[in-house]
Amino acid sequence: MLSEFDLIARYFKRPSHRQHAALGIGDDCALLTQHNGMQTAVSTDILVEGRHFFAGADPCMLGHKSLAVNLSDLAAMGAEPVAFTLAFSLPGVDEHWLEQFSAGMFALADAQGCELIGGDTTKGPLNICITVFGRVPIGEALQRTAAMEGDDIWVSGTLGDARLALGALYGDYTLDDYTLACAAPRLHMPQPRIALGLALRGIAHAALDLSDGLVGDLGHILKASNVGATLNVDALPAGPMLEKQDTDRRRHFTLSGGDDYELCFTAPASRREAVLGAAMAAGTPVTRIGRIDASPGLRLTDANEAPLTLHASSFDHFAAP
Amino acid sequence: MLSEFDLIARYFKRPSHRQHAALGIGDDCALLTQHNGMQTAVSTDILVEGRHFFAGADPCMLGHKSLAVNLSDLAAMGAEPVAFTLAFSLPGVDEHWLEQFSAGMFALADAQGCELIGGDTTKGPLNICITVFGRVPIGEALQRTAAMEGDDIWVSGTLGDARLALGALYGDYTLDDYTLACAAPRLHMPQPRIALGLALRGIAHAALDLSDGLVGDLGHILKASNVGATLNVDALPAGPMLEKQDTDRRRHFTLSGGDDYELCFTAPASRREAVLGAAMAAGTPVTRIGRIDASPGLRLTDANEAPLTLHASSFDHFAAP
Repeated sequence: MLSEFDLIARYFKRPSHRQHAALGIGDDCALLTQHNGMQTAVSTDILVEGRHFFAGADPCMLGHKSLAVNLSDLAAMGAEPVAFTLAFSLPGVDEHWLEQFSAGMFALADAQGCELIGGDTTKGPLNICITVFGRVPIGEALQRTAAMEGDDIWVSGTLGDARLALGALYGDYTLDDYTLACAAPRLHMPQPRIALGLALRGIAHAALDLSDGLVGDLGHILKASNVGATLNVDALPAGPMLEKQDTDRRRHFTLSGGDDYELCFTAPASRREAVLGAAMAAGTPVTRIGRIDASPGLRLTDANEAPLTLHASSFDHFAAP
Repeated sequence: MLSEFDLIARYFKRPSHRQHAALGIGDDCALLTQHNGMQTAVSTDILVEGRHFFAGADPCMLGHKSLAVNLSDLAAMGAEPVAFTLAFSLPGVDEHWLEQFSAGMFALADAQGCELIGGDTTKGPLNICITVFGRVPIGEALQRTAAMEGDDIWVSGTLGDARLALGALYGDYTLDDYTLACAAPRLHMPQPRIALGLALRGIAHAALDLSDGLVGDLGHILKASNVGATLNVDALPAGPMLEKQDTDRRRHFTLSGGDDYELCFTAPASRREAVLGAAMAAGTPVTRIGRIDASPGLRLTDANEAPLTLHASSFDHFAAP
């Protein structure tokens, strides 16, 4: 049986891959060299079996997703990925699982130039905690407090296909095989919008990533910036599979689906061309979905600007079933 | 019922305590400003109920210990604490537990000038993941690779009382109430040796903190530095409660007890006075327990330098019961 230290060494220690760290895995701490004029962006997320992923989830996709949801937070700050730590508890040593998990995680890490610099493993219920470090020049981070009256509200990519797949996997409804096969990757393999976040520096005002659903997450920007907003519900870019569902489901899942890991950001109306240019440069489509208002609260309208009243709330990890 | 966001805000958001972070809790990432000539030391630890602490553990002590074991890693690098993130899964919202846990955690954090800058909470088996950030001037970190032939080996404080308490709590043996009451704080409330770690910069060569037992942990220094060592087992500073136990138990628990969170470090024999001066300045006793040899392996002797053969191994989270 592999010891804890063998385990770490075999699957997670890759000395030849050191890119950023002055000292990586294997000491009490890793060391990252600092530079004047830069800030370190830090975010941490914990993923729990049965809550953030199904028991028995494909370990390769799980390795990808565990890192992706953290990188998404860096994207939302306009920060460039540098490094991450991985702490997890495992029910036992399953070499196949570890090999697949690390393969999925490192494929994304390498693609984004983000280096594993430390970690901790222990025995326990499957539970994955990643902390990521990015860098951003002082003053250029995209903060939730920065939305201003008159800003356009934008969202990247499409919304709701992850939620569509989740409902089918929970058995809330059935989807044909093709639809589920197309929607499920949005749930299992989210793509952090790093390139877009970097391209929006100096253009966007506020930004965040959509993990718990547009309405709830946008609410954080509104509260932090002390503003309100009007959203055109019919402008929301539904995922290609959700697009074919009925209007109620389409509206519900685009507004409060969760697990989208798209960026929602605000930018002055005068910078529309710059936003579109940044999106083009990043290879990421963006859609204008509303505007920031001075008066507090979130107002929903249809394509004709007629008010809509919809039940849409944020995902809450303790209140959810 | 408190929502996840209410929960975070009520117990963990303390805007008036911002000390180091340019941006703290409440955005996608926290921001820490970088400075030329400095390095960021990073360490992460995960604590699992039933493995690192007993189910129903006192939440105030648990809050302390969760942060303390991470700060101990900073101490072992000679790094000054700056900030930390906290990600945890909880079976549910228990306000008393949260109040006590945060009180214990913040008491230590404030004493060490270490600021909570971000986190994540979710529902699941009780599981606590903390990542700490410290700072150390470039070139001054105490690394495991730095031990040299002829170095003295030192240890701070005393060893084995935590292990003594643990055995009694597991029911392996009984201790009188007084002995258990005196030994248990070493298990539940470890004190990270931050001041000593800082004082040893420029004096010590290699250092690490003792979490899994002296023999196993010292083995990491020997392997990383490609050296061997001779330890005088009778010189090991047993805790005041372990001191009164029989010789076998005393040797066993000082050598491989675990949970000590003392520093083990090496320094040139020519710097003995400097080591003692640093220890005095830090208010932390230190004991010289052996020397680094060129020939690989760890040799144990008694006070008369006669070889001893003892069964002593490192704690392994997967192999342990």
